[in-house]
Amino acid sequence: MPALQFWFDFASTYSYLSAMRIDKLAGKAGVDVSWKPFLLGPIFADNGWDTSPFNLFPARGRYMWRDMERITKERGVPLNRPETFPQFTLTAARTGVAAAGEPWLPGFCRALFEAEYGRGEDITCDDATARALERSGTEPQEWLDKARQPGTKQALKDRVDEARSLGIFGAPTFITSDGELFWGDDRLEAAIAWAADSQPG
Amino acid sequence: MPALQFWFDFASTYSYLSAMRIDKLAGKAGVDVSWKPFLLGPIFADNGWDTSPFNLFPARGRYMWRDMERITKERGVPLNRPETFPQFTLTAARTGVAAAGEPWLPGFCRALFEAEYGRGEDITCDDATARALERSGTEPQEWLDKARQPGTKQALKDRVDEARSLGIFGAPTFITSDGELFWGDDRLEAAIAWAADSQPG
Repeated sequence: MPALQFWFDFASTYSYLSAMRIDKLAGKAGVDVSWKPFLLGPIFADNGWDTSPFNLFPARGRYMWRDMERITKERGVPLNRPETFPQFTLTAARTGVAAAGEPWLPGFCRALFEAEYGRGEDITCDDATARALERSGTEPQEWLDKARQPGTKQALKDRVDEARSLGIFGAPTFITSDGELFWGDDRLEAAIAWAADSQPG
Repeated sequence: MPALQFWFDFASTYSYLSAMRIDKLAGKAGVDVSWKPFLLGPIFADNGWDTSPFNLFPARGRYMWRDMERITKERGVPLNRPETFPQFTLTAARTGVAAAGEPWLPGFCRALFEAEYGRGEDITCDDATARALERSGTEPQEWLDKARQPGTKQALKDRVDEARSLGIFGAPTFITSDGELFWGDDRLEAAIAWAADSQPG
């Protein structure tokens, strides 16, 4: 089955857009999606950035929020801007990495994004991750414990290194099995079409 | 008639993509396009950048060139990467500003973009601007002279200030008559649809 990696950061607004539609679009095209939460912070730090470019470059940030308003309205997706942007999503990312391959991982990720950008909630605390785990039908405490294990912490660091070595510089990023990289929610259709056309190696 | 401003920098790769298709797409939608060449350099300088972000952030730059390859191939548009990126497009921009409202302005701009990114030529010298003027059916020397006049130089500076005050941070940017800003060739269809739906004020 053709495959597509979906790399995203829980703090990323455009990743929210893709999280809410990728499985449906990919399913129609017969493409299997692998959800890869990671952290953009260390990659932004390589550029000398200590926060999101949407904060560092105010005109770019104002545009992003207006762009998000227009797109979510057109798609009928809720948008409520959280007080803090970007949010600190370390617990969420560690939990997502610990849950690699679990069938409830996409549902967990969507539940977190819906809380953050659909309802404008703070998702930095463990409670928010626990609620998203519950919503995806999983036992929260077991997975919060797994998120805190040294092996999980290291796995997230390794994943950030992998993202860097793949040439990832933003989120969402989609990577096909033949190594094509597509950046941005507006490239999701092109990424799926490429994945559907290419033979897995 | 609904109207759309098309703001672009002659050095911008994605502006090339839009220049080659905007008049056809807008014409179908009954939208009148106003071509607004400007310079991104002074606006990038506001961010502390002394060159294109595609050079400052290498992963972003590598991706841009691959993205351009895929898109131009799909659209059947030629792409040849010039030796220098970004090119110094001051003469081109001044000529484009001097020619505001001239019916041959879009043809002149397309001729320059085709030279630069279609054939990979250097467009920094006056000769390149002269050839593009000829191609658009205009007398080169008259317009090169106009490009050098103090009033034209000031008009370009004013245009950059206008871009900044409009919240423009990249190119291409499309602005509707009711003030909606759309950034990037991938937003061209959305910008035209918005312009077609909105009543000019």
